[in-house]
Amino acid sequence: MAKYEKKGELSYTLGTTLTFELLLRKAEVAKRIYVNPKQKRDETYTKLVHLAEANHVPVITNNQKIFSLSEKENTMVIGEFEKFTCKRMPQGNHVVLVHPSNMGNLGTIFRSCAAFNIDYLAIISPAADCFDPKCVRSSMGAIFSVPFAYFSSFEEYLALAGQRHLYPFMLQTENALKNVKKEKPYSLIFGNEATGLDSSFLNVGTPIKIEQSSKVDSLNLDNAVSIGIYSFLD
Amino acid sequence: MAKYEKKGELSYTLGTTLTFELLLRKAEVAKRIYVNPKQKRDETYTKLVHLAEANHVPVITNNQKIFSLSEKENTMVIGEFEKFTCKRMPQGNHVVLVHPSNMGNLGTIFRSCAAFNIDYLAIISPAADCFDPKCVRSSMGAIFSVPFAYFSSFEEYLALAGQRHLYPFMLQTENALKNVKKEKPYSLIFGNEATGLDSSFLNVGTPIKIEQSSKVDSLNLDNAVSIGIYSFLD
Repeated sequence: MAKYEKKGELSYTLGTTLTFELLLRKAEVAKRIYVNPKQKRDETYTKLVHLAEANHVPVITNNQKIFSLSEKENTMVIGEFEKFTCKRMPQGNHVVLVHPSNMGNLGTIFRSCAAFNIDYLAIISPAADCFDPKCVRSSMGAIFSVPFAYFSSFEEYLALAGQRHLYPFMLQTENALKNVKKEKPYSLIFGNEATGLDSSFLNVGTPIKIEQSSKVDSLNLDNAVSIGIYSFLD
Repeated sequence: MAKYEKKGELSYTLGTTLTFELLLRKAEVAKRIYVNPKQKRDETYTKLVHLAEANHVPVITNNQKIFSLSEKENTMVIGEFEKFTCKRMPQGNHVVLVHPSNMGNLGTIFRSCAAFNIDYLAIISPAADCFDPKCVRSSMGAIFSVPFAYFSSFEEYLALAGQRHLYPFMLQTENALKNVKKEKPYSLIFGNEATGLDSSFLNVGTPIKIEQSSKVDSLNLDNAVSIGIYSFLD
């Protein structure tokens, strides 16, 4: 029986929409499409099967076991894919997440990166597993369109990242996001949900603070990242 | 045994930090503080007890039952409070959520509203229950600092909202957020996570679109709201 394993080589798209995203954006890693025998043979189904066939991805309709992957009883379609990573770091604008721990946040950050054409997402371990089906789902498939890779340290990322402008987001600085000069190519750097970036990042590039009231300790990570990315658009 | 009920009059802060927020920002609705017998009698505990006493809120240390409320076995402190609402709508800048369905999103939206000094959050039913302990937690206590109320329709809200500039966020318009003239006082209006605002909102005030790539259908709701609020700051 298929079950998601963090250390395994496979992961899954749970649901029809997500499986379409897999086939449309990253068909080369798709291995199999499982269809619940209860799935109606409607237009959506026909489209999915055609798309899978066009990409030489087998569609299996007589296997119920894999549906134990899904918490929702009524999941009709599951895509199985090989985990992948971006081997060559693109130039352009990056987001760097240092030890993100929440899978939901990580997924929605992928979504915002895709929405605003971020070229690359670097994730510094230890970090949440972006291949966990929960994260794949919360990314709404954006994991298939934003190039990304994991690094064992920020230094390892930096050694490969080339000449660029570094902007760590942290509350320990007085440089307001609104006022800071925004230069390209950039890397916007964000810390862990609970602890943020440690003070050593005050010596990295141009630290930035999102101006906020004293009513909160901080913003939710995905909101801080979204505001940061959006503010750096032309 | 205490158990959260949507139709009941009570809700709960699960955890020490959240319970501090309750006592610091909204002590008048706090009814009781329950302390797990395993809680150490440390400095945090002493502060909590003093704060509760100063606000005439009883602290109960010999009751384990209420801890069945919490999914986390190790919750040390739970605050019990009466549900509340803001009786008089303040002027100033509002966020209006039309049928938000996700409790996590609703909580992080409270957090962003508090961070950026939004004066009022209007929630149009049917909608997620902001008093659910999951939402209270994801708000990180911001539910205690942002005035809010539920309305049965957008029209009901509008009838009470007075003269103001209305900005519905929707993808069916071509007015880009970056370019639109931002006037105060304003109401930033957002639709449901899955369906957005219906096209009737094209006739309400100045519709706005957050410019985004075709790689995604939309942003996650809390990210759209956060970008919207931040962009409307001076």
